[in-house]
Amino acid sequence: MRDWKNLEPVAGNGLLHRRAFLRGGTALAAAMTGYTLVQSASAQQLTDDPWSLVPGVAVPDYGARSRFEKNVVRTLSNPNAEPRTQHARTPHHLINGTFTPNGLHFVISHAGDPDIDPDKHRLVIHGLVKQPLVFTLDTLGRYPMVSRMTFLECGGNSAPLFSKEPIQASVQALHGLVSCAEWTGVSLSTLLEEAGLDKRAKWLVAEGADAPHLSRSVPLTKALDDAMIALYQNGERLMPGNGYPMRLLLPGWEGNMNIKWLRRIQLTEMPGMSFYEARTYAPILPGGKAYQFYFLQEVKSFITHPSPGLAMKGPGFYEISGVAYSGNGRISKVMVSADGGKSWAQAALQEPVQSKAFTRFRVPWRWDGGAVVLQSRAWDEAGFAQPTRSELVAVRGETTRIPPVTGFPSQHYNAITSWAIDRNGEVKHVYA
Amino acid sequence: MRDWKNLEPVAGNGLLHRRAFLRGGTALAAAMTGYTLVQSASAQQLTDDPWSLVPGVAVPDYGARSRFEKNVVRTLSNPNAEPRTQHARTPHHLINGTFTPNGLHFVISHAGDPDIDPDKHRLVIHGLVKQPLVFTLDTLGRYPMVSRMTFLECGGNSAPLFSKEPIQASVQALHGLVSCAEWTGVSLSTLLEEAGLDKRAKWLVAEGADAPHLSRSVPLTKALDDAMIALYQNGERLMPGNGYPMRLLLPGWEGNMNIKWLRRIQLTEMPGMSFYEARTYAPILPGGKAYQFYFLQEVKSFITHPSPGLAMKGPGFYEISGVAYSGNGRISKVMVSADGGKSWAQAALQEPVQSKAFTRFRVPWRWDGGAVVLQSRAWDEAGFAQPTRSELVAVRGETTRIPPVTGFPSQHYNAITSWAIDRNGEVKHVYA
Repeated sequence: MRDWKNLEPVAGNGLLHRRAFLRGGTALAAAMTGYTLVQSASAQQLTDDPWSLVPGVAVPDYGARSRFEKNVVRTLSNPNAEPRTQHARTPHHLINGTFTPNGLHFVISHAGDPDIDPDKHRLVIHGLVKQPLVFTLDTLGRYPMVSRMTFLECGGNSAPLFSKEPIQASVQALHGLVSCAEWTGVSLSTLLEEAGLDKRAKWLVAEGADAPHLSRSVPLTKALDDAMIALYQNGERLMPGNGYPMRLLLPGWEGNMNIKWLRRIQLTEMPGMSFYEARTYAPILPGGKAYQFYFLQEVKSFITHPSPGLAMKGPGFYEISGVAYSGNGRISKVMVSADGGKSWAQAALQEPVQSKAFTRFRVPWRWDGGAVVLQSRAWDEAGFAQPTRSELVAVRGETTRIPPVTGFPSQHYNAITSWAIDRNGEVKHVYA
Repeated sequence: MRDWKNLEPVAGNGLLHRRAFLRGGTALAAAMTGYTLVQSASAQQLTDDPWSLVPGVAVPDYGARSRFEKNVVRTLSNPNAEPRTQHARTPHHLINGTFTPNGLHFVISHAGDPDIDPDKHRLVIHGLVKQPLVFTLDTLGRYPMVSRMTFLECGGNSAPLFSKEPIQASVQALHGLVSCAEWTGVSLSTLLEEAGLDKRAKWLVAEGADAPHLSRSVPLTKALDDAMIALYQNGERLMPGNGYPMRLLLPGWEGNMNIKWLRRIQLTEMPGMSFYEARTYAPILPGGKAYQFYFLQEVKSFITHPSPGLAMKGPGFYEISGVAYSGNGRISKVMVSADGGKSWAQAALQEPVQSKAFTRFRVPWRWDGGAVVLQSRAWDEAGFAQPTRSELVAVRGETTRIPPVTGFPSQHYNAITSWAIDRNGEVKHVYA
């Protein structure tokens, strides 16, 4: 066995070539052995544990997780449902792969999750159309369908990173307002062409059936591009917190615009200037101006393994992995640094790389036990690169309010995240 | 608006071109309007339903489905967990998209689901290796990981179709022992190279930690190809019924070989001839011989919408859709017939088409209200086509035992399924 420890790093502090541990194809393939993470086995390892000696439990009609997974949950900002917004954040450090299971998809709900009877729910398309139409869930189910993986991200995801001082929190607390799922439903363009567009129509105002009747304006160009009325999430009907029984899906655009519990689409000449688009999502920039209609969720990545709370278990081999995504399309490249950005190694991207969806990236790493700073930086197929934090806050400003609040820089943070690992293996959030 | 009803069918009984309803790209795009499935809207459609007038319920830390979805469940063959095998079947007619949510993934369990403590569970690799090794869940988590979508299918899925008379049952009862998920874990080749293979090793025997210690033999060529020790299922830890905390994954091969609750991999010169490989999965052919080591799940498809139990709602536009998959790789083509196989229309395949994974196919259809017989037929990239039922049973035989039992033709049915629709819109299983 050749020892992987002898592999030449491709970047500082022990980052190895992304193909070092793939079978075949590279000169490094022979070096796959010798991670030395494990013990030699002996016969005593094969004695029966208690669960091997008795029948198990009955298979249920709807599967539930093992009781040992009960701590893998979303964190809640308002668990008692007081009359303000509720946030439920995805535990990115405790899951893996390329999408988010339904029970752990992030939710923001401004007045709780409505308990909608799907047989009574209606979607109306009206306004500047030739023929206003009303749809039931059943009639929508007869139209041609499409499926697509796409991430959804709150415009305020990662807002804690606008803070002047790095907030010590997990990747769940910092980046937990983004998730990825496969959505299946009817292209909005199909329904708009069924209703017939008046040529004055330039926008639509979408409205939910929740108590606040949350509404947002969407340019018609997006509605006719890749917008969907989503009916299924990861194969089954939408979760109550994700818009059951139907939601607007605008791949790559600000989460708040993807109206949940969708009941109305009104075609208009002008945007509606609703609460969220006129106030929350039009934050004031350092010069005093506000930006308006900043819809795109730009290219971004963060490392999920390791990350704060996942302590290192001594020097040796590790895999660094995380997720990257862009509202512009496919991720084209992710680079990873273990020395705070001085040198970079290209990460392997899990195939298939899909447009506007999570792409899992991975880099093999030999940690020598010293202090390091891990970063990831993503590029998308449109040519955009994730900015450094200093580049971003130079334009957008910082906040001394922890956590940041609405109005001062709190939206569309997509810059690089840095994790420092000390000699004890503890992982902390730093600015580097 | 041009009326879709005037579109020329591409095959008998109203099958339309697969691109008839896609935006752009074809001369038929202008015909997208006029499905006439819906009512004109009026102002009264926008009155508030009760759930729009009150705050909703608190967002939970782990999301659960709407109470209105409680009937979307697996059917259970042995709900009281009597001392025999339990089957839980996927409701393909009630879900959509390209993979199966974890709660609805099929399960076959021969002694219930063991309640395994993941911190105490061990995987041992021994036998013809240079260094026997023992792995914990934590150590496995440090190796390089891969993610892949793959279907899993019981060798006995669709066994009711060997019956001489078509059994009247839903697609769930007939084809519910196949599902598809994204699995994330460690390539088995990585671990075998870590242990170091003795050159005499030609097989491995994999064994589960369930009470029956279910074991199967796997050729080393497959183990070194695309086999995985799966640790995550659709992003979260494996479901208890799907092998928590770890299972063997052999993409495209018979479900029973994908050992759940995996605790042992023993490298050997010869197969172990365990119960399931020597008896259940070595069925006797009409000539009296048995086939042995029939591992591959061959190319197959079935229509999920419409299907028995999903009654048609009057003549008009429908989308026919279903799933296709092959253990040989990617699906290359799916053809759909509405006249019992006399004429065929090519279905649209949902992109990305992934190797050894469900591919959703869709065909637009104008049902004129007459009696029809729907069929789907799939081809894979290796050039294999799904056989007709008469071709298959000519080789494998039929059974008069309903439901078929172990030993007589009951395994690896991959022929065409036929749904007859009568003038009342009722859907029945037929042989055609």
